[in-house]
Amino acid sequence: MGRIETRLGELGIVLPKPMDLGPLPFELVRIHGDRAILSGHLPLDAEGALAQPLGKVGAEVSAEQGYQAARLVGCALLASLKQALGDLDRVAGWVRLFGMVNAAPGFNRLPAVVNGCSELILEVFGPEVGAHARSAVGLAELPFGAPVELEGEALIRP
Amino acid sequence: MGRIETRLGELGIVLPKPMDLGPLPFELVRIHGDRAILSGHLPLDAEGALAQPLGKVGAEVSAEQGYQAARLVGCALLASLKQALGDLDRVAGWVRLFGMVNAAPGFNRLPAVVNGCSELILEVFGPEVGAHARSAVGLAELPFGAPVELEGEALIRP
Amino acid sequence: MGRIETRLGELGIVLPKPMDLGPLPFELVRIHGDRAILSGHLPLDAEGALAQPLGKVGAEVSAEQGYQAARLVGCALLASLKQALGDLDRVAGWVRLFGMVNAAPGFNRLPAVVNGCSELILEVFGPEVGAHARSAVGLAELPFGAPVELEGEALIRP
Repeated sequence: MGRIETRLGELGIVLPKPMDLGPLPFELVRIHGDRAILSGHLPLDAEGALAQPLGKVGAEVSAEQGYQAARLVGCALLASLKQALGDLDRVAGWVRLFGMVNAAPGFNRLPAVVNGCSELILEVFGPEVGAHARSAVGLAELPFGAPVELEGEALIRP
Repeated sequence: MGRIETRLGELGIVLPKPMDLGPLPFELVRIHGDRAILSGHLPLDAEGALAQPLGKVGAEVSAEQGYQAARLVGCALLASLKQALGDLDRVAGWVRLFGMVNAAPGFNRLPAVVNGCSELILEVFGPEVGAHARSAVGLAELPFGAPVELEGEALIRP
Repeated sequence: MGRIETRLGELGIVLPKPMDLGPLPFELVRIHGDRAILSGHLPLDAEGALAQPLGKVGAEVSAEQGYQAARLVGCALLASLKQALGDLDRVAGWVRLFGMVNAAPGFNRLPAVVNGCSELILEVFGPEVGAHARSAVGLAELPFGAPVELEGEALIRP
């Protein structure tokens, strides 16, 4: 078992099945050379379906639930990367996370929500490999009413 | 005539003139090495002006009209790439599309709208070169009331 | 004194202290090889705190104030790059700016706001190095009510 898989086990993290929302005209992970570009991912349940709760953070979804949803998005990103790479130990470094919160009017504590994903990546990969640039912003709508979505980029070993 | 130009002809696709919204303090396509970074593009008419209809998808603009607008954005991206590269056959692969829908409150079928661009790219470039990572999200406002905007990145041959 | 520092002096631009919003689970600039990925930056005052005014452009914040805020974001990006690189002369070229405006309902003159950052980058780095791809879009909410946020990417010399 790989180093990152071992680390996930230590943290008690079970990855979901990769996002399965039917046939898609794009790839969850697009690999070119040493770059893995990650499509926008939503919070998933264990089966790879959209996790509950849905709705806007600051209204139907609390900030704490939003944080947990962002953490689930992080798990979904890892599940897609694992499927694309075979082995998460091939992740050489994180580059960028773009965190999008389905924000209720007036809810602007967006970084606190997106931290759910950033902190997961740092816990799993450590402060060097896991370090990344990031934005955390409030969108008007997200697909299917998901509370959080993230896209990003990682560097990989061949 | 190049392979992609021939393919556009087979599909009956006529590219617009490149986006012409007056002098801009940025480039429609920024090339560094083998990367072509595409600025946010709007749906264009044949002359390179903003296409009708304008407005929010889910309100003034229907989901189907939004799909067609996203397809027009795809044509605008190709027009800019052709101008920058000289020959669309120099596109070696698509990397990323970031699809932004001017979403009416409560309209969250954003992927169905952005599919208009993704499917165009796949029709024109085929499933290998055309494959890309993607996000489809709902913005509060887009320039000049455009219903859809996309930015992205492609890989090119020197 | 480096070339870009000299140029900043000629333009009368004093960079703020790098953004200081407390400990962050991400980096303001993430460097991999010749790429410097810039996290989402907000307008800063001289001390690196969030600049006034806050609020939505088109409501509490005028378009002209939004332009000035975008210019301050440009200064914040340069301050972070300087801290990360030691010397701004190491910037070999700009790649991408993604400009996000905290847009009041109906305010869609977003490019005019984001021009504040694009024009600063062109003034400081000139038309060749400073050229970049760009999007200018309207977000529903930005962190702490900031009127503008930008993320981006630059190329650097080793």
